[in-house]
Amino acid sequence: MKRGTSRDIRTANRYEVLRQIIAASPTSRQELAAATGLSLATVATLVGELLDLRMITEVGFEDSAGGRPRGLVAVNASGGALIGVDIAETYVHVELFDLALNVLARAEENMRPGESRPEQVVAHVAAAAGSVVAQAGVEAARVLGVGVSVPGQVDRATGVSEYAPNWDWHDVPLLDLLAEHIAYPLYLDNPLRAGAVAELWFGAARGRGDAVVVNLGTGVGAGLVLGGGLHRGVSNSAGEWGHTTLVLDGRLCRCGNHGCVETYVGAPGIMQNLRELSPRSTLLHPDDQTATIDALAAGVAAGDPVAVKVVRDTARYLGAGIANLVNVLNPEVVVLSSWVAARLGAPLLEEVREAVARHALKRPLAASRIVLSPIPSDPACLGAATFALEGALQSVGQRGARRAVPAGTRPRPAPPVPGPVEGTRP
Amino acid sequence: MKRGTSRDIRTANRYEVLRQIIAASPTSRQELAAATGLSLATVATLVGELLDLRMITEVGFEDSAGGRPRGLVAVNASGGALIGVDIAETYVHVELFDLALNVLARAEENMRPGESRPEQVVAHVAAAAGSVVAQAGVEAARVLGVGVSVPGQVDRATGVSEYAPNWDWHDVPLLDLLAEHIAYPLYLDNPLRAGAVAELWFGAARGRGDAVVVNLGTGVGAGLVLGGGLHRGVSNSAGEWGHTTLVLDGRLCRCGNHGCVETYVGAPGIMQNLRELSPRSTLLHPDDQTATIDALAAGVAAGDPVAVKVVRDTARYLGAGIANLVNVLNPEVVVLSSWVAARLGAPLLEEVREAVARHALKRPLAASRIVLSPIPSDPACLGAATFALEGALQSVGQRGARRAVPAGTRPRPAPPVPGPVEGTRP
Ligand SMILES: [Zn+2]
Ligand SMILES: [Zn+2]
Repeated sequence: MKRGTSRDIRTANRYEVLRQIIAASPTSRQELAAATGLSLATVATLVGELLDLRMITEVGFEDSAGGRPRGLVAVNASGGALIGVDIAETYVHVELFDLALNVLARAEENMRPGESRPEQVVAHVAAAAGSVVAQAGVEAARVLGVGVSVPGQVDRATGVSEYAPNWDWHDVPLLDLLAEHIAYPLYLDNPLRAGAVAELWFGAARGRGDAVVVNLGTGVGAGLVLGGGLHRGVSNSAGEWGHTTLVLDGRLCRCGNHGCVETYVGAPGIMQNLRELSPRSTLLHPDDQTATIDALAAGVAAGDPVAVKVVRDTARYLGAGIANLVNVLNPEVVVLSSWVAARLGAPLLEEVREAVARHALKRPLAASRIVLSPIPSDPACLGAATFALEGALQSVGQRGARRAVPAGTRPRPAPPVPGPVEGTRP
Repeated sequence: MKRGTSRDIRTANRYEVLRQIIAASPTSRQELAAATGLSLATVATLVGELLDLRMITEVGFEDSAGGRPRGLVAVNASGGALIGVDIAETYVHVELFDLALNVLARAEENMRPGESRPEQVVAHVAAAAGSVVAQAGVEAARVLGVGVSVPGQVDRATGVSEYAPNWDWHDVPLLDLLAEHIAYPLYLDNPLRAGAVAELWFGAARGRGDAVVVNLGTGVGAGLVLGGGLHRGVSNSAGEWGHTTLVLDGRLCRCGNHGCVETYVGAPGIMQNLRELSPRSTLLHPDDQTATIDALAAGVAAGDPVAVKVVRDTARYLGAGIANLVNVLNPEVVVLSSWVAARLGAPLLEEVREAVARHALKRPLAASRIVLSPIPSDPACLGAATFALEGALQSVGQRGARRAVPAGTRPRPAPPVPGPVEGTRP
């Protein structure tokens, strides 16, 4: 059975209360009960647990009309630190956050062409993680965990990257490799789910029961928030919308199928759209996805007809593909996320809205808003750090008892020296 | 917020316990706790409620090794009756069930060509409902409710058929019209969700967290079981997979979009596949979907190459469309349901499995089984009756207090005479 056990429900409620405190500090137990729909008694218990963990603090009282003054709580931003790692096709991006999920330090390592062995990627991650801890001057013991987002199919429970199409990785034990360099608890997942959990905690999916977070980068996918939580599917591989067929017998995809959504709306697909429209366009930077997308964005802003047409063609595919998600899932909100969406921005959004309206059924269309991600930083980093936060919250109440190891976690004793090994930068 | 309130969780647990009792009568509270993952105390409370409702009864004791004898409970089949109504494109099918969901009586009314006004359909439903109550000799007071499945988009809360494409109905207040003839509590939904709930309670989705029930009839769709419960979406219109684009710019669909899955794998789409392959085939009965599908099934059994090719072509579209669901949702099981699937049976299933394997990603593919519905009767009737059962379970604990009206319900006082008005048969 996959139905929620009472422990799952307690964990979900704990997430919900902390989410609400982070969003609305300072706040009272009464306000939390009203905002979450939980009973005051349940909220009081969960607040007590979060106080014990020093994730939140008491910050005084407010008068309540005619009643006793109400105790206020706020997130204890300095009560711990979280690290989010976004391993992408061409870079490793690492951010260190406080418990209010403010970014305290950033580090980026560029992957050189041809650098695709797991050990090389792991060395970049270790170097960047060491850098953010050093920059922020955070004690190692205060780092609650490191969340890692890696493209492709991952097995959270074992920490294995089962298949990363960009590097053709198969069954790489990524968390074990990382644990040789990083002594904090580690959590592995992919950018679809990281992006979705970032929107769920801090972005456009907050307070929404059903939301779709469309990830537009080199790869393409959809993180799913269903029934107020992340939908993972039975083997943690839900959301592979990028590899759904939109054009039967269409373009060959790197997954082996033809006509996948990704082949038309991922960055290489957009370059192909441009190439088919205008093979010698100066907008095209054949070996540089980022430069091409930037050139298209600038071209649209300047009214370049080729750029406008490419964005419109791309939006047509994207709109038909998003309409498929709207028709199947009937979400309240569709969020366009990741770097291609961020760079093409409002002009893409407008074209996509029109295209979705042409393809979707009226009733689910009327119920859905389509928006750009409001998250100003890297959503995969933020989401990965959120997995580490969720991991820390999941272990509440398990201390004292035999320490249960949550799925995808490699808990280590707090290291005597700053965790990441320094000097591994290649 | 859409997250489950404590009442939602209690209701879901009540469903789960009754589901388990129906599946495994007689059973003990201890076995129920083991099967559902609920605590023994919670199970005991829920069993007490079901006993109070006379939906189950105590049926003796079993010895437990070394302990006290354990009390056994079983579903009280004669404790009430449920009616399921399947309104389809060409017929109205009504079944009366006992509480173990055994069929006690059936009635079918055929819709004459051109009969498409709501009043005509309602008269058929009323006649058939009156017939099953009379046939079964059930007291009116024992009928707990009538579930009605109607194709298209429905608003459960108001009982309105918002859009039924086959008859071009718009905003028909179907439950209000039915309530003029039928005095039992009424519940409205569509065949996608009825089929899914039937599989969830009694079929291939029992005990599965994530399942997709693919409904193959004149219309096509997918009922979604996610996280152990029905996924409805924000406006109860999730599952419109039949209107997802599979062939961009492909066949014109009755929804106005081009290349929808339904235009290739619904009964009229299959007829079109046949027509394109062999325009003058004797398998084609131009005005009779059922006869054409039956001819194809017989043709495949006899090794007719045209029939074999049409089923293969259809399975190719169906497989690509199902692979999309597998990639996006990562379900544990995909169930092929409704009359087209039942009639084409094992040969279709085999071709579909091969086609899905060609299109889906390895990881979600490996986690999914594809099966034919094991439900021997009309799944839409069974599912509709199950909605009535769920409605009765939802109102537990609300008696005595102000009677809350569950969404989509029209509770009426128990009628002094058998509910459905007799003699309305046109
Ligand atoms: Zn693909
Ligand atoms: Zn359609």
